[in-house]
Amino acid sequence: MSKLSEDQSNEIEEARSNVSSTLRAVSPGMEEILYRSMPVLDHGFVRVVDYMGNDGAVVQAARVSYGQGTRQVSEDRALIHYLLRHWHTTPFEMAEIKLHVKMPIFVARQWIRHRMASVNEYSARYSVLDREFYIPRPEHLAAQSTSNKQGRGEVVGPQEADRVLRLLVEDAERNYDHYLEMLNSKEDGTRVDDARTGLARELARMNLSLNYYTQWYWKTDLHNLMNFLRLRADLHAQYEIRVYAETILDVMKRWVPITHEAFVEHRLEAATFSGEALKALRRLLAGEKLEQSDTRMPKREWEEFRAKLGIA
Amino acid sequence: MSKLSEDQSNEIEEARSNVSSTLRAVSPGMEEILYRSMPVLDHGFVRVVDYMGNDGAVVQAARVSYGQGTRQVSEDRALIHYLLRHWHTTPFEMAEIKLHVKMPIFVARQWIRHRMASVNEYSARYSVLDREFYIPRPEHLAAQSTSNKQGRGEVVGPQEADRVLRLLVEDAERNYDHYLEMLNSKEDGTRVDDARTGLARELARMNLSLNYYTQWYWKTDLHNLMNFLRLRADLHAQYEIRVYAETILDVMKRWVPITHEAFVEHRLEAATFSGEALKALRRLLAGEKLEQSDTRMPKREWEEFRAKLGIA
Amino acid sequence: MSKLSEDQSNEIEEARSNVSSTLRAVSPGMEEILYRSMPVLDHGFVRVVDYMGNDGAVVQAARVSYGQGTRQVSEDRALIHYLLRHWHTTPFEMAEIKLHVKMPIFVARQWIRHRMASVNEYSARYSVLDREFYIPRPEHLAAQSTSNKQGRGEVVGPQEADRVLRLLVEDAERNYDHYLEMLNSKEDGTRVDDARTGLARELARMNLSLNYYTQWYWKTDLHNLMNFLRLRADLHAQYEIRVYAETILDVMKRWVPITHEAFVEHRLEAATFSGEALKALRRLLAGEKLEQSDTRMPKREWEEFRAKLGIA
Amino acid sequence: MSKLSEDQSNEIEEARSNVSSTLRAVSPGMEEILYRSMPVLDHGFVRVVDYMGNDGAVVQAARVSYGQGTRQVSEDRALIHYLLRHWHTTPFEMAEIKLHVKMPIFVARQWIRHRMASVNEYSARYSVLDREFYIPRPEHLAAQSTSNKQGRGEVVGPQEADRVLRLLVEDAERNYDHYLEMLNSKEDGTRVDDARTGLARELARMNLSLNYYTQWYWKTDLHNLMNFLRLRADLHAQYEIRVYAETILDVMKRWVPITHEAFVEHRLEAATFSGEALKALRRLLAGEKLEQSDTRMPKREWEEFRAKLGIA
Repeated sequence: MSKLSEDQSNEIEEARSNVSSTLRAVSPGMEEILYRSMPVLDHGFVRVVDYMGNDGAVVQAARVSYGQGTRQVSEDRALIHYLLRHWHTTPFEMAEIKLHVKMPIFVARQWIRHRMASVNEYSARYSVLDREFYIPRPEHLAAQSTSNKQGRGEVVGPQEADRVLRLLVEDAERNYDHYLEMLNSKEDGTRVDDARTGLARELARMNLSLNYYTQWYWKTDLHNLMNFLRLRADLHAQYEIRVYAETILDVMKRWVPITHEAFVEHRLEAATFSGEALKALRRLLAGEKLEQSDTRMPKREWEEFRAKLGIA
Repeated sequence: MSKLSEDQSNEIEEARSNVSSTLRAVSPGMEEILYRSMPVLDHGFVRVVDYMGNDGAVVQAARVSYGQGTRQVSEDRALIHYLLRHWHTTPFEMAEIKLHVKMPIFVARQWIRHRMASVNEYSARYSVLDREFYIPRPEHLAAQSTSNKQGRGEVVGPQEADRVLRLLVEDAERNYDHYLEMLNSKEDGTRVDDARTGLARELARMNLSLNYYTQWYWKTDLHNLMNFLRLRADLHAQYEIRVYAETILDVMKRWVPITHEAFVEHRLEAATFSGEALKALRRLLAGEKLEQSDTRMPKREWEEFRAKLGIA
Repeated sequence: MSKLSEDQSNEIEEARSNVSSTLRAVSPGMEEILYRSMPVLDHGFVRVVDYMGNDGAVVQAARVSYGQGTRQVSEDRALIHYLLRHWHTTPFEMAEIKLHVKMPIFVARQWIRHRMASVNEYSARYSVLDREFYIPRPEHLAAQSTSNKQGRGEVVGPQEADRVLRLLVEDAERNYDHYLEMLNSKEDGTRVDDARTGLARELARMNLSLNYYTQWYWKTDLHNLMNFLRLRADLHAQYEIRVYAETILDVMKRWVPITHEAFVEHRLEAATFSGEALKALRRLLAGEKLEQSDTRMPKREWEEFRAKLGIA
Repeated sequence: MSKLSEDQSNEIEEARSNVSSTLRAVSPGMEEILYRSMPVLDHGFVRVVDYMGNDGAVVQAARVSYGQGTRQVSEDRALIHYLLRHWHTTPFEMAEIKLHVKMPIFVARQWIRHRMASVNEYSARYSVLDREFYIPRPEHLAAQSTSNKQGRGEVVGPQEADRVLRLLVEDAERNYDHYLEMLNSKEDGTRVDDARTGLARELARMNLSLNYYTQWYWKTDLHNLMNFLRLRADLHAQYEIRVYAETILDVMKRWVPITHEAFVEHRLEAATFSGEALKALRRLLAGEKLEQSDTRMPKREWEEFRAKLGIA
């Protein structure tokens, strides 16, 4: 489990002890968790550092109103569903969230591909990284999928798992030992050898492996957060980023419960059918029996089509 | 002066009467003005609708800290100045502001060119626009500049001003009369002629002129706000957008006083010298007397160079 | 019809007479139309000014290849369909298009909302606009829709049409006359009265109405072009921007015929079903008869659902 | 030195053998190097894969012209210098470049922070990475700077360098051996043990260190390219990304020689002075002798101020 240092925990609780008055819109569900660390993977976390707006901010902007813009809950709910169903995006850009996230570097490399966000990352040019690296739990050590070139298949056997875990731990530890050695630094930050200055941090870091943890402040708006979640909370996303997305999906539910509900309904549980798929659908509804060869869909789309409809 | 309707004022005061507790960072200067309308031009305004973060958010992100990240005011101030002087941008993206702005359409057309912002505009496809248009005050009726192809020169004489103002008012009023006529609508929204449905709003609006007022919600981060202000609070900006920028500059001062101070110092009052200008500067410092022909600067850059240095 | 001046036509034909050799990927369909003006509305046009890449650029980037990256046409086609079906976006960002567009200002105001593009607009601060304004053809003079608050309904009767057209033409002409008068300028650009300097262009322009034509260079990538086309070639888009989108859709077909085909199949002719809609769909396929009240879809979504399936 | 495989070289030469006719603007300097690999570091490269526009595209867009928009070279040159001097950005967005780059992962992590670009990266979820990692040359093995917390100081001594290089090579080789072992793969891609499927590629890759090479297609416009170059060709940039920036700076000189010249003059060789620095400058020009304490500049700004002016 991810452990914060005592200093870090104190910083967080001090931040939580500062209660202020504000005229701004507030999200009660977010106030409860603000600043607190939600553990993810073995050393990672997600912390909400700040937010702006709530469900009301979406309807307020959609209505370009002078006050809060909210009316009856049922009207607001219908509007939010309508906006999402019809792919309106700008009202959802009007609410903002800021997270502090700690994650393995290979997860950070996928995450950063979402460009519509602001990022401040902990700098390994400026500071020494901690001896913290990700080691999967045995049940997540999956073999290469045989059907999907970029996915996972079955979990590997216990013997193979042991071997993999041993290699991962040994290499990560050794690489860190040598990182410190190049820096001429002991674990506590003091020098090993006063005669050496040690290699520049920006160089020594290259010896660390991609499972080392990094951290950043990440800020985005609700629209772009949903784009992130749609891709990364999906079953095709790599497990190690999906658990972050799932944690953030829970945060979203606290923050903007109505938008969350509409997002699940119109994005996560929705499915898109191509022109050819729609033709096939109409024929099925008219009572025809269809094989792939009766349609113009390629094999893979045909299988996806059947999966969406729950046809065996 | 810009007058809000009684309904609008009530909406605003109701929003201001909702005081909540929050654990988030607060900007006291912003709480004082939240939701209130600051008049700009004859019918326009700027209202702060929401904000996220304050000066502390900048240092918190720059330090990727666990708590507020702020230390001594003098350290925070030095850090913010350092960041702006060295063109660091991402920490300033970590604070966010949302404004409700009402402005003439030709101002909105310049404003929208700043793409790194979110916008929800009042829709003239969906609603009927009000009879509100911008008429400059006589002292702002400037002639075309003779030296600057896109600027203003001297104020025109009183007779010419009268003529211009009469034309602007008459045409705007007539265009609005005809807008309503095409819509088959009276001023109060009721129909003129029950036998007619009236032209679609999305068509009728094309008869309105560019000085008609529109309004939008506009949200951006502190970094992009400074980009906006640097260009639009500049003397080369058109007067009618500059007064909006100046109003927002005052808002910025309330919101993030330290960043505002650093922004004035390192952007608004700063000047950039090209490679050739730097060479000339060094020669001047060495005691040389220089004419334009002694340098490789073109005439216009030479004049700008002298202006920056306050050389007559 | 849109008429280019002789000078403009000459400029275009001169540009077309410069044939060069290049090692870059070429799109034969684009070379045929490069620089030429495709008329839209009464005075508008779309011109392709430059492009980068073709269908091959998409597969080349998806494969991060060393050469052109293309294989058999059938493989490339399958890959492009796959990418679009699974919402991959980055390979489509690797092809770029640059257009010169002339359109009414109210169309430009919708267009500019697509932020992921580069724009250089003709400046009415710098230059005098021409006496060119959009007047709809009678068959496009639609009444306000009674069912859709932002749409059009039936075409208005001939008498009402005459009245509307007369108002639009008269107001546009008068506003332009007064624009010139304020500028102290005759139609040919010479002064009316040597004693007056004339109002600054940046001020006088505010007297023009929103149907006046403006023009710009607009550059975007294929991914963002498809986003634009999906929204603006849609039946819910205003007619006056839709005709531009349809013209550009033809351009896209010439430029990247395979991507165009896949775009029609997986975007334009596709439909998305929400979680509730999918449940209803499965029940229908299982032979149930359904009314709206048997589902949890609101009335409007239910109607859209039936329309997508072509159920009467 | 970076070696392409024979297949890759053949792919490149085949691409170069396809000469086409085009009516588009051409940059002769770019045609000469198109597709060819320019080596950077020990295994990296930069290759120009495509481009759109040349210096003419900048002036064409600035003038919203119907043809090429270029006039006399001296006029075009003056316009481009003017645009850069006055921070106009949109005309420079009208030219586009696409590069294929191979670089160490820690370089890619800095590079990707430039969000205004399109990227397709070689996927280590989908494919196995090669045994290629960056090892600095001894003369680049610098110690941590004592004055700059994120910079390099003196080169380390030969003994320390030997030790560092040995650790870097041994760890990288061992990590790769274990990467293959987890994948159950030999160097040639065949299986080690038919009874094992091997760990999923998306998991095994986490054992590789940050000096392993990755590659991507990267596309951006000339404006954003200059932003990249201003930061990354700067002396404060890490050496390992600076050599890429310098290579691309040479590419830029071939592509858009006039813009390159103006960029060097108005960005790379330019300096910005704050409000306080300008005051000090005026006092110096008036003949005053100044110490830091006579000004309101902090110590570090004062030193930068003197460095800009070349004052000992």
